[in-house]
Amino acid sequence: MKDPIPRKTVYRLSLYNRCLEQLGFAGSGTVSSEVLSKIAGVKSPQLRKDLAYCGHVGKRGLGYDVVLLRERLAETLGTSRLPAVVLVGTGNLGSALLRYQEGFAKEGFEITAAFDARPEKRSSDISVPVLPMTELSKFVTERGVKMAILCVPGTAAQSVCNLLLENGIQAILNFAPVILQTPPGVAVNNVNLAIELENLSYFIK
Amino acid sequence: MKDPIPRKTVYRLSLYNRCLEQLGFAGSGTVSSEVLSKIAGVKSPQLRKDLAYCGHVGKRGLGYDVVLLRERLAETLGTSRLPAVVLVGTGNLGSALLRYQEGFAKEGFEITAAFDARPEKRSSDISVPVLPMTELSKFVTERGVKMAILCVPGTAAQSVCNLLLENGIQAILNFAPVILQTPPGVAVNNVNLAIELENLSYFIK
Repeated sequence: MKDPIPRKTVYRLSLYNRCLEQLGFAGSGTVSSEVLSKIAGVKSPQLRKDLAYCGHVGKRGLGYDVVLLRERLAETLGTSRLPAVVLVGTGNLGSALLRYQEGFAKEGFEITAAFDARPEKRSSDISVPVLPMTELSKFVTERGVKMAILCVPGTAAQSVCNLLLENGIQAILNFAPVILQTPPGVAVNNVNLAIELENLSYFIK
Repeated sequence: MKDPIPRKTVYRLSLYNRCLEQLGFAGSGTVSSEVLSKIAGVKSPQLRKDLAYCGHVGKRGLGYDVVLLRERLAETLGTSRLPAVVLVGTGNLGSALLRYQEGFAKEGFEITAAFDARPEKRSSDISVPVLPMTELSKFVTERGVKMAILCVPGTAAQSVCNLLLENGIQAILNFAPVILQTPPGVAVNNVNLAIELENLSYFIK
């Protein structure tokens, strides 16, 4: 049973992990909480509190052993074994994300397949296999895929979401402009770039 | 002086706007709060409370006049005049977003220019002009651009952010894996796809 780590803490733990990775720390060495918190852009006491969820990883006056810290972060976040991901909806945004596959791969994620109602319309520069929606159930259940990226139009989002959940998907990164209705135990993170931009424009004077 | 609408309400108002748009309502007609709230995936009382920020737009028993509601949403959100946007950092993700320009344009946003330390490395299928970083200050101040999409590596994010703010940028959509330090009055929305995925993977059983 995992500890109930607050969602915002999980987010920051991911952030620390990325910061350590991006800094390209060599195989050994330590990093102080002051340095790491500065890079991550959080307050140092916040960082220490967050990292306490990973057990006793810091040494007083010496900082954090980088190798140990990254191992513990991966264990805590469950990212030592990154799950397979499918993408549904290969329109403008879905295609852009598939072309970003290289970027995801660098971060340790692999989109194993994409699905679309009209798979034949995919552009030639996409290397991920694009399959028809009718093959989704079989693919996802056979391979035990638990995570999906949803890029279908808003009007189709809820029904595709239901199909995903019926086939064992437990976590969805949702790009459709709809708040999905899901049962407890399903995790949904929403990203809508147009809404983010529109939302920001409200704050411009 | 704008009313202080809570950030989450602003987000949902944007969502309602998108839903009305996506549904392709014709020039006239009404929509009930029940129908609109169902499409948006929020509770009906929540929707009515949110729309109260747009003034008296509903008629008892008749629902909302669609034309009027969209006008009021645009006024309230300040999206009747959508601001110009620049994108900084044309690596994997920045390039993917520029290729999605078509999708942004459909939503009413135009990325007027992109900037990169090495603008010559852009791929040929990007139609937005990609300029060197040295031209950023002039471009942004001359055209009064207030909004930027930040796609640079984490290690460069804060310094590029500072440069943007010095040149009058007031709102940033940040894709870099760093929590940016900004003065009050600057709006930052964070999107980090790798962190969103990693974060979701934590919730898979």
